[in-house]
Amino acid sequence: MSKQIEFFFDVGSPTSYLAYTQLPKIAAACGAGIVWRPMLLGGVFKATGNTSPVTVPAKGRWMTEDIGRWARRYGVSFAFNPHFPINTLTMMRGAVGYQMRQPEALLRYLEVMFRAMWEAPCNLGDPAVLAATLQQSGFEAAAFTALVGDPEVKAKLIANTDEAVARGVFGAPTCFVGKQMFFGQDRLDFVREALA
Amino acid sequence: MSKQIEFFFDVGSPTSYLAYTQLPKIAAACGAGIVWRPMLLGGVFKATGNTSPVTVPAKGRWMTEDIGRWARRYGVSFAFNPHFPINTLTMMRGAVGYQMRQPEALLRYLEVMFRAMWEAPCNLGDPAVLAATLQQSGFEAAAFTALVGDPEVKAKLIANTDEAVARGVFGAPTCFVGKQMFFGQDRLDFVREALA
Repeated sequence: MSKQIEFFFDVGSPTSYLAYTQLPKIAAACGAGIVWRPMLLGGVFKATGNTSPVTVPAKGRWMTEDIGRWARRYGVSFAFNPHFPINTLTMMRGAVGYQMRQPEALLRYLEVMFRAMWEAPCNLGDPAVLAATLQQSGFEAAAFTALVGDPEVKAKLIANTDEAVARGVFGAPTCFVGKQMFFGQDRLDFVREALA
Repeated sequence: MSKQIEFFFDVGSPTSYLAYTQLPKIAAACGAGIVWRPMLLGGVFKATGNTSPVTVPAKGRWMTEDIGRWARRYGVSFAFNPHFPINTLTMMRGAVGYQMRQPEALLRYLEVMFRAMWEAPCNLGDPAVLAATLQQSGFEAAAFTALVGDPEVKAKLIANTDEAVARGVFGAPTCFVGKQMFFGQDRLDFVREALA
């Protein structure tokens, strides 16, 4: 498949979730593949000097409303996670880990994480809640613990994050079509245009 | 006219310019009026703890590209002002001043300011350039100086800015349709929906 959307994301980002729900349709309509690029948004913020929009209270209040509007437009079930912001290091290591070691499980893992984060919504920052969520979905807890503790997995998440920053990423989600970069779930129509 | 779009803006904001170029069409299509609400974006930033996106270099680089994409989509002539950010205090006092003292001149004044800022683009932060720009467009310099020095005009710009902040504004442009707030020129389709 020659056309590709590279999708840099973090499951802790509500707009990454919205983009995640829409991308498969866009990719299918444009005959493009999705290249999943898990990264650690906290690491991107640290490297670029960017901060979460919610650090400005007025912006945070508006964003919650705005995300609700987009979710309604998309017809997506969405509940702002009351535990936000949640440290996603383990979860994003999990994404990288499945992608490296068990790629056929990646999409199922992302579905479980994104839905538990932005549809349920659960406090996945609590290791017990995360373990229970995984277990209920058929992911074995001991295997998961081993996966996210794997030094190569840890290094790959850092490498993805560093690569994102080197290519100009400052937030999530960010899509690339070739060298063109599109920040935000609200730029998916430009992604579609770039693929056309 | 019962339907209204309140448009909070600053001529120093490139996305305010883009919204400015599109709003009349949207208002006409929806049978709505535009209520021009000049505010000082610097004052909004100070009050809310927000900062210009360009304070994060990677975000600033992407925004320049993004604004170019929107300008092409809109078919709007746009050149990023190399003197950005420009202190717009005098210019925004001018907007408030014409609105208060000579309302029939407001739209012509905004057209001159926005185009000189984002189409020409000129260094309107330089008083001599500002004076020359106004003079060339038929605004008499001495009258303008008197207008922007009027204490009531100064106070009204502060009041507009304070009101914006009190209503949840944290950046420019921001539109209100009734109590619904929409931040950004990239939310104009939601403004259109709210008016429908």
